[in-house]
Amino acid sequence: ELVAELVAARGPRELAGMRFLVSAGPTYEDIDPVRFVGNRSSGRMGFAIAEAAAHAGAAVTLVAGPVALATPAGVERVDVRSAREMRAAVLARTASNDVFIAAAAVGDFRPQAALPQKFKKGGAALELALVENPDILAEVAALPARPFVVGFAAETENVEAHARDKLERKRLDLIAANQVGAGLGFERGDNALLLLWPGGREELPRADKRELARQLLARIAHLRAARSGTHA
Amino acid sequence: ELVAELVAARGPRELAGMRFLVSAGPTYEDIDPVRFVGNRSSGRMGFAIAEAAAHAGAAVTLVAGPVALATPAGVERVDVRSAREMRAAVLARTASNDVFIAAAAVGDFRPQAALPQKFKKGGAALELALVENPDILAEVAALPARPFVVGFAAETENVEAHARDKLERKRLDLIAANQVGAGLGFERGDNALLLLWPGGREELPRADKRELARQLLARIAHLRAARSGTHA
Repeated sequence: ELVAELVAARGPRELAGMRFLVSAGPTYEDIDPVRFVGNRSSGRMGFAIAEAAAHAGAAVTLVAGPVALATPAGVERVDVRSAREMRAAVLARTASNDVFIAAAAVGDFRPQAALPQKFKKGGAALELALVENPDILAEVAALPARPFVVGFAAETENVEAHARDKLERKRLDLIAANQVGAGLGFERGDNALLLLWPGGREELPRADKRELARQLLARIAHLRAARSGTHA
Repeated sequence: ELVAELVAARGPRELAGMRFLVSAGPTYEDIDPVRFVGNRSSGRMGFAIAEAAAHAGAAVTLVAGPVALATPAGVERVDVRSAREMRAAVLARTASNDVFIAAAAVGDFRPQAALPQKFKKGGAALELALVENPDILAEVAALPARPFVVGFAAETENVEAHARDKLERKRLDLIAANQVGAGLGFERGDNALLLLWPGGREELPRADKRELARQLLARIAHLRAARSGTHA
């Protein structure tokens, strides 16, 4: 709250000169030309972050999975479908950005091989072999010259413990965790977030995703300023 | 073309007094609270059919899977997610409709059991057991007192042979077939259809889905009139 007030007091262009890379939406992994494995994500959190960052003066590139959302004003958008497409689009842009916010719900798994033709019913059960997708967030965080890296954690239980583990294991600068499964999180306009960083935490109570985006950006600005020793 | 002209010449309310049940969009089958198996479908063909039928004076109920489309004017909409939800919504309404147009891309398979919690990466490959979904179209066509039943067939090869086989095997009154996979069919605004019915066929060249919907409805009106012996 204090941080938000401080940042707001700096005026509406407090992110001017900064370059943000934001991923958003789900990824879809094709099983055949008709079917795919998807994951639930409206993309609204990532789009709200991109919009708020651009509004605050940052140069914003948004790498978006398949969503039905309009591109926020002033944001450069790159559309992708699969996790591997998203990985390529993100890795090509990490060096030219100061902050990477991974708000996309990237699919952890994909079918081992996409079939060239639609498979037919055979009357029996079917086993679909899945293999793990690349972990884009961990890859970016492991880069020698990396941007400030922000991850998200959607958890159905033990939210803080799982999120803290993910923060440390992937060496993130900040993680935004939320609980899903009980009318919360996915495909909704509002949400509640728990922010965790090395040595700190902040609870953002349920609010419109645009308001949460502003508070998240304020926290990022504060942590980056503290790190570089230039905070007010 | 002749049929379309004849129907058009009857004026804009040529379906007045008829009740249409239309299914549209994909179905999504949950793997866990986050992941699902989906199939590609924008829902635009089914929504265009519902809109055109309502415009022509029919009472229209639209059973829609997860799509990002506005409900056409004058259409009653029922939202569903999975194939089993769609089956229940359709079967509850077959007795009160004259025509059932199954434009939905219903998933043929679903995970054997949806997991109550998001599963975690384990470092290894994963086998996902899939079982067949109910065949809504065949079930409706097998009802003792059934509406006029129209199916769709999205095929990647041998379109006419596969569609004719489906028409006969499921005892449909009409099937609308299209080729997918080469920039055609799914998630597009235009399309081309091959209409097949017992003893007949008609090719509808590539056009806007609204225009195709009008031509499909004209064919349905003609076939129903011929069957009841009341055609002009």
